[in-house]
Amino acid sequence: MDTTRIRRAQEAMQAEGIDALLVGPSPDLRWLVGYDALPLERLTMLVVPAEADPQLVVPALEAPRAEASGATAYAELRPWEEVEDPIAVVRDLLTATGSPRVLAVQDQLWSSFTLALQQAVTSARWVAGSRVTRELRVVKTDDEIAALRAAGAAIDAVHAQVAEMLRPGRTEAEVGREITERILDDHDVVNFVIVGSGPNGASPHHELSDRPLAEGDPVVVDIGGTREGYCSDETRNYVVGRCPAEYAEVHLVLEEAQRAGVAAVAPGATAESVDAAAREVIADAGYGDSFIHRTGHGIGVEEHEPPWIVAGNTEALRAGMAFSVEPGIYLPDRFGARIEDVVIVTDDGAESVNHRPRHVIEAG
Amino acid sequence: MDTTRIRRAQEAMQAEGIDALLVGPSPDLRWLVGYDALPLERLTMLVVPAEADPQLVVPALEAPRAEASGATAYAELRPWEEVEDPIAVVRDLLTATGSPRVLAVQDQLWSSFTLALQQAVTSARWVAGSRVTRELRVVKTDDEIAALRAAGAAIDAVHAQVAEMLRPGRTEAEVGREITERILDDHDVVNFVIVGSGPNGASPHHELSDRPLAEGDPVVVDIGGTREGYCSDETRNYVVGRCPAEYAEVHLVLEEAQRAGVAAVAPGATAESVDAAAREVIADAGYGDSFIHRTGHGIGVEEHEPPWIVAGNTEALRAGMAFSVEPGIYLPDRFGARIEDVVIVTDDGAESVNHRPRHVIEAG
Repeated sequence: MDTTRIRRAQEAMQAEGIDALLVGPSPDLRWLVGYDALPLERLTMLVVPAEADPQLVVPALEAPRAEASGATAYAELRPWEEVEDPIAVVRDLLTATGSPRVLAVQDQLWSSFTLALQQAVTSARWVAGSRVTRELRVVKTDDEIAALRAAGAAIDAVHAQVAEMLRPGRTEAEVGREITERILDDHDVVNFVIVGSGPNGASPHHELSDRPLAEGDPVVVDIGGTREGYCSDETRNYVVGRCPAEYAEVHLVLEEAQRAGVAAVAPGATAESVDAAAREVIADAGYGDSFIHRTGHGIGVEEHEPPWIVAGNTEALRAGMAFSVEPGIYLPDRFGARIEDVVIVTDDGAESVNHRPRHVIEAG
Repeated sequence: MDTTRIRRAQEAMQAEGIDALLVGPSPDLRWLVGYDALPLERLTMLVVPAEADPQLVVPALEAPRAEASGATAYAELRPWEEVEDPIAVVRDLLTATGSPRVLAVQDQLWSSFTLALQQAVTSARWVAGSRVTRELRVVKTDDEIAALRAAGAAIDAVHAQVAEMLRPGRTEAEVGREITERILDDHDVVNFVIVGSGPNGASPHHELSDRPLAEGDPVVVDIGGTREGYCSDETRNYVVGRCPAEYAEVHLVLEEAQRAGVAAVAPGATAESVDAAAREVIADAGYGDSFIHRTGHGIGVEEHEPPWIVAGNTEALRAGMAFSVEPGIYLPDRFGARIEDVVIVTDDGAESVNHRPRHVIEAG
């Protein structure tokens, strides 16, 4: 863990005029103090005042879990008993030295807690916690980049085993289950497994189904997990048996689009220029209406996080940013294809953390 | 799916003076329309007006996924494109026929969306969505009870295989991984796997560690998953080899406490009386300070949901309620034990959905 994160958050809060940051179970909590808290009905909340030491409010029965995480190196534990009201505990911490005027709540905090806090501390205006943490997390440190590279290698190793899993008659769900187990070989958590076969590939966020694979099916495989706190995310396209000519043609367009997207990555380039570079190749080939999503999302302790690689985002890329470049072409009721690598912005371009071949792989 | 759920929610909203209910990815969304949406940064939101037809706002790229779920039988899809603002889409739906005065947001909606909605619809007072859904979900229908029984049988089948997994030298994480795979044999999702060996058993929500099992270790195994939309949850205690005399003694107290808790369950009894019945046995045996959590939690489409079986909850139990009865005894730095069944309130008592032996199991 990086011991400067709390301090950097406090500096950001002081600059923004925010009195305290309230962080429930979330990627921000893991990033700030290394605690992977359970997102349940018992409130866990890191209270970070702009100018005082942080406290970690935890259910008493989870105090040993919080201690085991090492979070106590960054925040004092404040366990609450089953018959206490944790909202009152947080309120008392927030109002001990006066009435707070601006409070930031971590973006993923449950609304039930947000509404209860708003009722308990009526003096405050409430703002999104990402006002504090976004800038801190969006440019990765060398240690974080190393962790993303390692996660990239781990998901590469899973993709290296996918072709042999794709046999006619096996269902998407069966393949998905085997991929799940292989992800766990070198990740701590499975974040998602998409196996979109035949027409299901045209649904970018398709859910595993009982559809059996058939000879000649294209299969979009998009998988990711968390390894030592950092996420992987990689998409490749396979065909069960021989690749149909039309799929091969569409796939070549996509390969060029993905290369163009990555080639557009550089410090100072805008996020939307990366999207435009990939999109232009696809539009020029006549498939513009079939690329129905943005080109990418940032990645780090969270699978999807800023920066968003999307039209309208004029944010300038900076060295150390990490995001996916994942153009796709989707033909409803027929098939889909998407190629995705995670890249790191370097001093003069992009480094991919994924190294599997990007062409379509014929399985079997 | 039960087609009356939306209608019952609308009746509850009319009775409470709530103009609309806003439901993001959550157990409530699954319960209302059967859609297991991705909890990501792109907004998915079911908008249920008290007096008009519901609409399901989804990212365009997830429209095929939403359709495949069958949710369109209950709500009209309103896909939004990557360059649209989904908060504005929801605002326009909410304000089409006037300025809403009271809006309910589902309890687990991310605070970033809650704050954005509050800024977009300033005419409204905001209340917790559970004001609408709690009462609808807390008493289970016959179909739901059947689903909980089936989930209970599925987790029983995993516990039946745990003893053979517990061998000296294997780590908690290795055992946890094997349990994860066995849960997936007859569940769709693994919700949690706690393997608390030796002193780790004293941490009720212990996280899997690399601690190797040793001869004579007590091991608390608390596991649960989701099967066809409904959750399982069962805890049993094992010993690697022969059971130490003191552990056997503590465990007998716990068995009696768990029986007493279940025996106190009946329509009309209060939730806290179940907690008190289990707690009294443990306190009488001199371990009162070592039972550091409430006796149980409701269960259904969510692993933890109302009713809470805790001191201070004077709510009367009703036939069809489902919850865990799970007293525990925790001796820090030494060991822990917890016995947990899920029970359904019947017309004259309780039916357990778990049937594994409750005594301590010697493994190997």
